[in-house]
This record gives sequence, C-alpha cells and structure tokens, in this order.
Amino acid sequence: MRMYDVITKKKHGEELSKEEIEFVVEGFTKEEIPDYQMSALLMAICLKGMTDEETVNLTMAMAHSGDMLDLSPIEGIKVDKHSTGGVGDKTSLSVGPIVACFGIPVAKMSGRGLGHTGGTIDKLESIPGFRTDISNEAFFDTVNRCKLAIIGQTANLAPADKKIYALRDVTATVDNLSLIASSIMSKKLAAGADAIVLDVKTGSGAFMKKTEDSIALAEMMVRIGNMAGRKTYAVITDMNQPLGELVGNNLEVREAAETLMGKGPEDFVADVTILGKFMLLAAGKANNLIEAETMVKEMISSGKALDKFAEFVRAQGGDDTYIYHPEHFEKAKITVPVLARESGYVSAINTEEVGISCLILGGGRATKADIIDPTVGIRVLKKIGDSVTKDEPIAYLYANSNEKAEQASVRLANAYSYSDSFVEKPKTLYGYVDENGYHEF
Amino acid sequence: MRMYDVITKKKHGEELSKEEIEFVVEGFTKEEIPDYQMSALLMAICLKGMTDEETVNLTMAMAHSGDMLDLSPIEGIKVDKHSTGGVGDKTSLSVGPIVACFGIPVAKMSGRGLGHTGGTIDKLESIPGFRTDISNEAFFDTVNRCKLAIIGQTANLAPADKKIYALRDVTATVDNLSLIASSIMSKKLAAGADAIVLDVKTGSGAFMKKTEDSIALAEMMVRIGNMAGRKTYAVITDMNQPLGELVGNNLEVREAAETLMGKGPEDFVADVTILGKFMLLAAGKANNLIEAETMVKEMISSGKALDKFAEFVRAQGGDDTYIYHPEHFEKAKITVPVLARESGYVSAINTEEVGISCLILGGGRATKADIIDPTVGIRVLKKIGDSVTKDEPIAYLYANSNEKAEQASVRLANAYSYSDSFVEKPKTLYGYVDENGYHEF
Repeated sequence: MRMYDVITKKKHGEELSKEEIEFVVEGFTKEEIPDYQMSALLMAICLKGMTDEETVNLTMAMAHSGDMLDLSPIEGIKVDKHSTGGVGDKTSLSVGPIVACFGIPVAKMSGRGLGHTGGTIDKLESIPGFRTDISNEAFFDTVNRCKLAIIGQTANLAPADKKIYALRDVTATVDNLSLIASSIMSKKLAAGADAIVLDVKTGSGAFMKKTEDSIALAEMMVRIGNMAGRKTYAVITDMNQPLGELVGNNLEVREAAETLMGKGPEDFVADVTILGKFMLLAAGKANNLIEAETMVKEMISSGKALDKFAEFVRAQGGDDTYIYHPEHFEKAKITVPVLARESGYVSAINTEEVGISCLILGGGRATKADIIDPTVGIRVLKKIGDSVTKDEPIAYLYANSNEKAEQASVRLANAYSYSDSFVEKPKTLYGYVDENGYHEF
Repeated sequence: MRMYDVITKKKHGEELSKEEIEFVVEGFTKEEIPDYQMSALLMAICLKGMTDEETVNLTMAMAHSGDMLDLSPIEGIKVDKHSTGGVGDKTSLSVGPIVACFGIPVAKMSGRGLGHTGGTIDKLESIPGFRTDISNEAFFDTVNRCKLAIIGQTANLAPADKKIYALRDVTATVDNLSLIASSIMSKKLAAGADAIVLDVKTGSGAFMKKTEDSIALAEMMVRIGNMAGRKTYAVITDMNQPLGELVGNNLEVREAAETLMGKGPEDFVADVTILGKFMLLAAGKANNLIEAETMVKEMISSGKALDKFAEFVRAQGGDDTYIYHPEHFEKAKITVPVLARESGYVSAINTEEVGISCLILGGGRATKADIIDPTVGIRVLKKIGDSVTKDEPIAYLYANSNEKAEQASVRLANAYSYSDSFVEKPKTLYGYVDENGYHEF
C-alpha cells in the first residue's frame, strides 16, 4: 500500500477502506508517513469529506494507536461524560457527585486548560490538598469505594490523535466534522467507559458556532460510540455566553458546590440536570427522562450530592471544608467592577473574550508552561437579554494585579454588545441525540 | 502574513492576492514555510482551483525565484519552443535548424530524459564530439553566428518550481491545470526568449489524456505567456502513439536528419512543419500560416535545413558526417523483431510502455544517476489503424543484451491492442491556440 495512492483516492472523493485508514494512522504514528503527505490527505478529507464508515474506522484506528484502558477492576456500568468545551463549564464537578450517589461509577480522566477555556484538573487542584496524580490502582480503588474519581491523563491515550491534531492545527484542517468527531471519540473509546454522555456546546463561544453543525457533530459522535459498542448520548447546550456566573478556578469549584446546595445559577443547573439525566439513563438507573429528572433533583435537595462531592474531595486528599463552606476559598486581593459602556439590553457576549480576560488575570494558560493563579476570575452579573444602564456593573473582576485587572477590564467591557430594543434570553438546552437521531427539547 | 491564513483562504475557494502568492513562493523557496503547510495549500489548490490572475502571479513569482536570463547579447527576436513531452519526440532537432535558416535566433536550454520520456540533451550527446556544457558566452556567440544552439540547463531557472514540483510529485497534487501551466511557463519565462511556441501533446501517452484538457492547458499557458509580454502560441498534437518511427537516442538524431532530407515519417514531418510555421509567425518572419508552410517546406527540399543542422552540430563540437550520413551512427549489437500477438487492426498502443521498453534496453534513465546507451532503441513498424497478421513484426528492438531485449520485447508486444474491425488512423494535429483562443485544424 502506498500513501500516494490513498491521497489520490480521497482527492477523487472516493471512500477509503478500513485497511487504508489503518495503514495511514499506523504509518503516521510510527513516523513512516511524512507530515507533508498526511497534511495533503487531511486537506483532501476536509474538502471531500468522509463517510460514517470511514469516520468510525478512523476513530477506532486512532483509539487503538495507544493504551486501551481496562476499567474492569471497577464494578458496574462505567459512564463517562465529555464536554466540547466553553467558558465557565464546571459541569463535571457537580454532575459527577450526583450520579455517583446512585452507585454509578464515574472514572474520569480530565485535561488541563489551555487558551481561553479552563480545565477540570486545574479547577480541582485549587482545592487545598487535592491530588490528581494518583496511581491507577488508587484510582480504581477510589471509584470502587466512592463511585467517583477524577485524575489527569496519565495513560498514553490515542497518541495518533495527538499527532494528527498538532498537524491539523497548523495546516487549517481543523474544522471538519469527521476529523473533530473522531478526535474526541478516539480518546473517549480508549478511556474505557461502557457508556458516554457528550455535552456538545453551540454558539459564539463554542467550537461549533451554528446549531446545525453542533447537531451534526453530536449525531456523528453518537453513531461512532454506538457502532463501537458504547451506549452514547449527546445533548446540545448553549455557549453563546459563559455558563453560570463564575469563571476562574476556585471560583468555579465554589459555584459547583453552591449548585449542589441548591443555590446554582439557572443555566448551569439546567446543564447539570440534563447531563445527570442522560448519565442515569445510560447507566440503566432510570427508565426515562422524567423519572431521571426527579432522581437528580432529589439528590441535590437532600444534600446527598453535596456530601458525595465532599467525600470525593476527601478521597483524593482535598480539604472538604471548602466544599461545605465555599466562601472560605482564598480570594484574590482586588475586586474591580466592569461597567456597561451603553444603556440597553445585552445583545451578545463574546464568550471567547471572557475566557481571555480570565487568562489575562492569571486564571488560565497561554502556553503549557504557565502557572495558574487559582483565586482570580470573573463574576458575570449581566447576561444576554438583561437590561442595563450605562456605567452599571456588568461583571466583577477578581485580580491580584492592578495592571492585569485594567487590561482584562477593557477587554471584558468590549466583549459586551447592546441593543436599544428588547432582546430575548437564549435558550440553555437545544435538544439531544440518541441512537434514533436528534430530538429537540 | 501567515501561511495558515493563506491555506484557509484557498480552502474556502477564495482568490489569493499577488502579495499572498509571492509570500508563499518566497517563503517556501527559503524554507521558511514547511513542506506540510505547502502540501495542504497545494491540495486545496487542486480541489478549489486558481483563477487566471492567480496562475499568472504564481508563474511570475516562480520565474523570479532564481535567475532571469538576459538574452539581449543575442540579436533578433528569440523564439523558444517547448513540448509537454512524449515518446519519440525529437522535434527540436529538426525544427531548430529550419527556423534558424530564416535568421531566427534559437537559444535553447534543454533537459535530460527521466522515466519513459527521452531528453533532447541526451539525444544530441549521442553525436560523437557534441558538447552541451558550453559557457554562456560561447552559447550566445554560437547563436549569433549560427542562429541555433542547444545547451543543458546551467542557470538556476525557477528553483521554486523545482522545489514545489518535488513536493507535488509525492502528495498527489500534480494534475492541476494551473499548477502544470505555471510550472512549465515559469521556466520558459526565466529562460528569456521573446516568443514561445508550445507543443501540447494529447492522448494516452501524454500527460494530458483528453483533448479538452490539453486545449485548456494550452489556452492557460498562452494567456500566461501573453500576459507576461511574450508572444505565445500553442499547438495541440497527438501522443496516442510514439511520434515518428524511431525511439532511442542516436536513432532519433538519425530520424531528425532523415526528416531534413525529405525522408521523414508522415506524422513527425507534420509536427515539425506545424511548429516551424508558428515559430516563423511568432518571430514575425511570416505573415500567415499558408506563407509559413511554403517557407518551411522550401528549407527542407532545398537541403538548407540539413546544412544548418550540420553547421549547428559542428559549432558545438560534433562530427557532422553523422548528420549527412546518419546510417553511419553506431548500431546496437542485436536486432530483435517484436511479433504481433493477434491478427487485425492495431487499435491502441500504450505509448508509455513503448518508452519504458526503450528504458529497459538502456536508452533512458530510471534514476538520475543512470548512464544512457546511445545506440539502443525501437523502430515502430505498425501504428494505430495499420492491419497486421499474427506473428508479423510490429517493431524492431535494437539491444546490446539478450536479457534486456527479451524483457523489453514482452513489454512492447503487450503494449499493442488489436481490433477485428477497421480502425481509423488518429489525426496528428488537432488545432492551435493564439491570443484569441482555440482554433481547430
């Protein structure tokens, strides 16, 4: 088999066979196929597309390019949850404890933040004492005892995806549905869960700006997951503005804990609830979405989910007093109000700019080597559809440097757009995808 | 400017600016732009196309990436001639002397053969004493005195094209009209002639298999040439079978000389004549094609073209007795007849296989380092439309090794297809392209 012929075939819009896709993924991972041939193929894929069959084969080949985790030491149906990313997305921190209450084992490997989005691992590490670098044995043991553990990615999961993604990133070949879906799903499949619930974000702050693209991506990932023998659901949720009110590391843990106390912001509660419902469904703990909703709400109102969050934090070495008293988290030294530039209704929020404002404050990483300040961040006071008066605070910045606060303040103020006329609040939940396709809420 | 943005633009089918194209060509030549980004752009160009404006800008940028030859020391309107290549194409050897007879300076830089096609330089070097490695001064001096000189490419002509072509060759991005046209024309423009006549081959043995593609390529090259201020014509001629009867190095010099004696095979004479006519037109020596035809034929019948061939060979150190007595050329030791596998009409000849048969005999190069045997080759006896009886000779092989002869013989025999019913002979000349577009003959 020759890479030249594979490129030619795709360039002519033909379907690649399983063997051809495996040849490409294996050859590229082993550095037998050079970057310049791979990038030509990736561009041909972007412009000619891939069939479902090809996408599944690509996903499986990338999943098998490294470790395939064996979660069999953990009892029960393991359910994984993945979000395509956004700003203020601390959903895993709240939904993990909720479903763990029902005995569903959640064994999650998470990433660190880079660029304008935060990472679950960074957020958890803002809890004093919390450790994410535990051994696989301790990880399995924690899940068996507590039903919930979240660690950093230690295994060599889907190295082919990592290498291909790095090349896509510099050759303008990122935005193809099959490539995006296979990239996400290859890691999920290698991570070993029995069932997968995907939170596909849509809107200006999401990777997918248009709802129809988000639905298409969700449908493709659900097909891949089901074809690979994992029960898979996806929900389409809003990312036209930050999720919840708080953006920043210990600030987001705080909001996650407050949500389990029944004091969460409406949009974030809705996101946590819908994901919890589908995780219960995927694990076979609930028979339908109505039943699941009652179950999720009960675990919050009874305080059991909060207790589970505290138990999980203790199990990974963290100080659980911060979970019961999130107001005790260390605070940044300076609080700066960001004022509305105009009067009217908030018509749009450039979500990426909100994330970058947090990054400027020190709450994120511009490069992998940056160290995160867990205390800084943003409280979003005004969201799309809210009416504001000029010079009224639209957000607070929590900073440890006046210079950075000033810089972030300008950026954040400019991230808001206003309208003189009434603006409707965007919906939080759009719909979900199961094995039968898309269903609007 | 960032290469990433240029790739994205072309991926979306947008037109690249002159500045963007110059940035790409310059950056890639200087190795500031990596292969993997260039190959992604090349694939996007193949699948999204380029406008005429972009193609001209690409051609000019590649032409200016190295030396731009200054032919001003040569008096008169310099006319260059270029063929897109084929098997048995020794046209330059006959047409050069013809137009030089009219005082038109022909200062030609030619290449060596690689793969299934031969090179003019290799053919000339099969004449004992002939030197192609003369200095630029001697080159100009020879053209001024004799009006004709052909040397190997010494100048650094269009290095960007060389580098880009090498990448296209391994990334399945060769077959795009704009890329092909700009590759050919960048070298022609850098070579400095005032006028250019292109022989665009069409058919199974040509780079362009379909007549409409050949016409499109010819039209594009003529537009580029004229936009660059060089009077440019193209003729579309047949390459469904080898041109003339002889394939091989000194064999082709022999046929070129015999053609100037009035004894050339019909199809080759037609090709030489049409190119001569357009070169006379391009140089302003003839007012129209009818006048030009009479002029070309007279130079052959009067023997003046043959004398000019001999003069040119002498001027470059060669022994001109071989031009007047081509039968004196050294011959290969073995002559092997290749027999028809079937009775009927020759319906097709796989021309590339004929070229490869010659290569196997030692008449070509599989790699750049190979040394050519000037004596070996093929005499094609039967062409498309000819009737044959099973086991009748269809060709002779001239070889210096029984083993190679046997191998080439099988290949050549298999290159012929037959039909029970009458097959029409293919036409030799299809049409020409001038500044007003395509005109069928």
